[in-house]
Amino acid sequence: MDFFDVINKRRSVRKFSDAKVPESIMRKCLKASLLAPNSSNLQPWEFYWIRDNEKKDKIVEACFSQNAAKTAQEIVVAVARIDTWKRNRNLIIEDYKKRNKLIPMVDKYYNKIIPYAYIHDRFGITGLIKRFFFIFLNIIGYFRPIIRGPIYNHQIFETVTKTTALACQNFMMALVAEGFDSCPMEGFDEKRVKKILDLNWQCRVVMIFGVGEAAKDGIYSDRFRIDDDLVIKEI
Amino acid sequence: MDFFDVINKRRSVRKFSDAKVPESIMRKCLKASLLAPNSSNLQPWEFYWIRDNEKKDKIVEACFSQNAAKTAQEIVVAVARIDTWKRNRNLIIEDYKKRNKLIPMVDKYYNKIIPYAYIHDRFGITGLIKRFFFIFLNIIGYFRPIIRGPIYNHQIFETVTKTTALACQNFMMALVAEGFDSCPMEGFDEKRVKKILDLNWQCRVVMIFGVGEAAKDGIYSDRFRIDDDLVIKEI
Repeated sequence: MDFFDVINKRRSVRKFSDAKVPESIMRKCLKASLLAPNSSNLQPWEFYWIRDNEKKDKIVEACFSQNAAKTAQEIVVAVARIDTWKRNRNLIIEDYKKRNKLIPMVDKYYNKIIPYAYIHDRFGITGLIKRFFFIFLNIIGYFRPIIRGPIYNHQIFETVTKTTALACQNFMMALVAEGFDSCPMEGFDEKRVKKILDLNWQCRVVMIFGVGEAAKDGIYSDRFRIDDDLVIKEI
Repeated sequence: MDFFDVINKRRSVRKFSDAKVPESIMRKCLKASLLAPNSSNLQPWEFYWIRDNEKKDKIVEACFSQNAAKTAQEIVVAVARIDTWKRNRNLIIEDYKKRNKLIPMVDKYYNKIIPYAYIHDRFGITGLIKRFFFIFLNIIGYFRPIIRGPIYNHQIFETVTKTTALACQNFMMALVAEGFDSCPMEGFDEKRVKKILDLNWQCRVVMIFGVGEAAKDGIYSDRFRIDDDLVIKEI
């Protein structure tokens, strides 16, 4: 399907038909999501495809049993993590080494700079130490451009959430390209969802997808966007 | 171009050729971004297409003069805002009224629930008050699913940043569909960028795009992804 047709066809579907989504399509679309660009290629995302019926029921309940969840043929939970950077960084380095491409700049980036950015602890003490360090950095910042973060846990969470959202958009678009639909939900009880999926405090539930084929009355209203001029600024 | 070809073809390009990007393509791709789904349809994004050469030079400098910025034919800054929800909410309500579709549920959602979610102040006092309110809500949360936020400013920022990232992915994909490329940059001095664009504290610079046609040596390394099994979980 032509790319701009996919863009136009994608709508958030609130009610799905009884049509099953073939496993192969689910896998194809999930894999396609992972080709999104992402922060330092650290791939801090996880996609939980909920196939167990009992778990699925619980997730639907945690989504307040909204139609988009209740009528969904498949449920996928997108998660962003701040605790997989070390493992993934090591895999990246390994790959560079295998290809004989580990130049000093890359080595320094992943082994010196990335740890400063991603280091954290549950109580935010590392964040406070980093903040202190950044006071000095900010003085340099008067004279030349500097990096301003991430400092606190919530800023690391913002980074991984942002990156995971890029993959989420790919997922929704891929489904449309394959003739299916989705509803990205943010209305859910995150605490309960994390408990169902056994996720630790270093995880953020980014969004939950209801997936299926749109029911005839599955799109609740016409698409509305505010005027382009309000948000696209040529300066 | 076929959707999955676009997915595969998109790479972060670090060096661009001298080929200009037609204005019409820039506008088409920027408009395409805005068709991404977004939190409560509040469209908290802004895309600054930097056409003024002096401003462009300053942005490039704030991106540490990295090649992806320096060689870019066009620069676009994606911004997420926590202060446009009221204006956009009113425009949404107006549209519902115009179409005679403002049912009580929608009215309540946009006029009662959304303000609780998006209200904030510079010093985070509203956040503390909300936190207090959520203590009581959490008691209910023992018995049934509840919404857990956003409470603090940084959580509202996370919401609008996440939503803006969805549009960013559309933008990058649209460029590829039109035969061009981009590099999403997160390595920039946010404070300086905000100053150049005259953005207030209620704005977050989500990412900055270098846009153009890939130079022959514009892609620095082979695409590397960790094993799918590490991030796609069928449970």
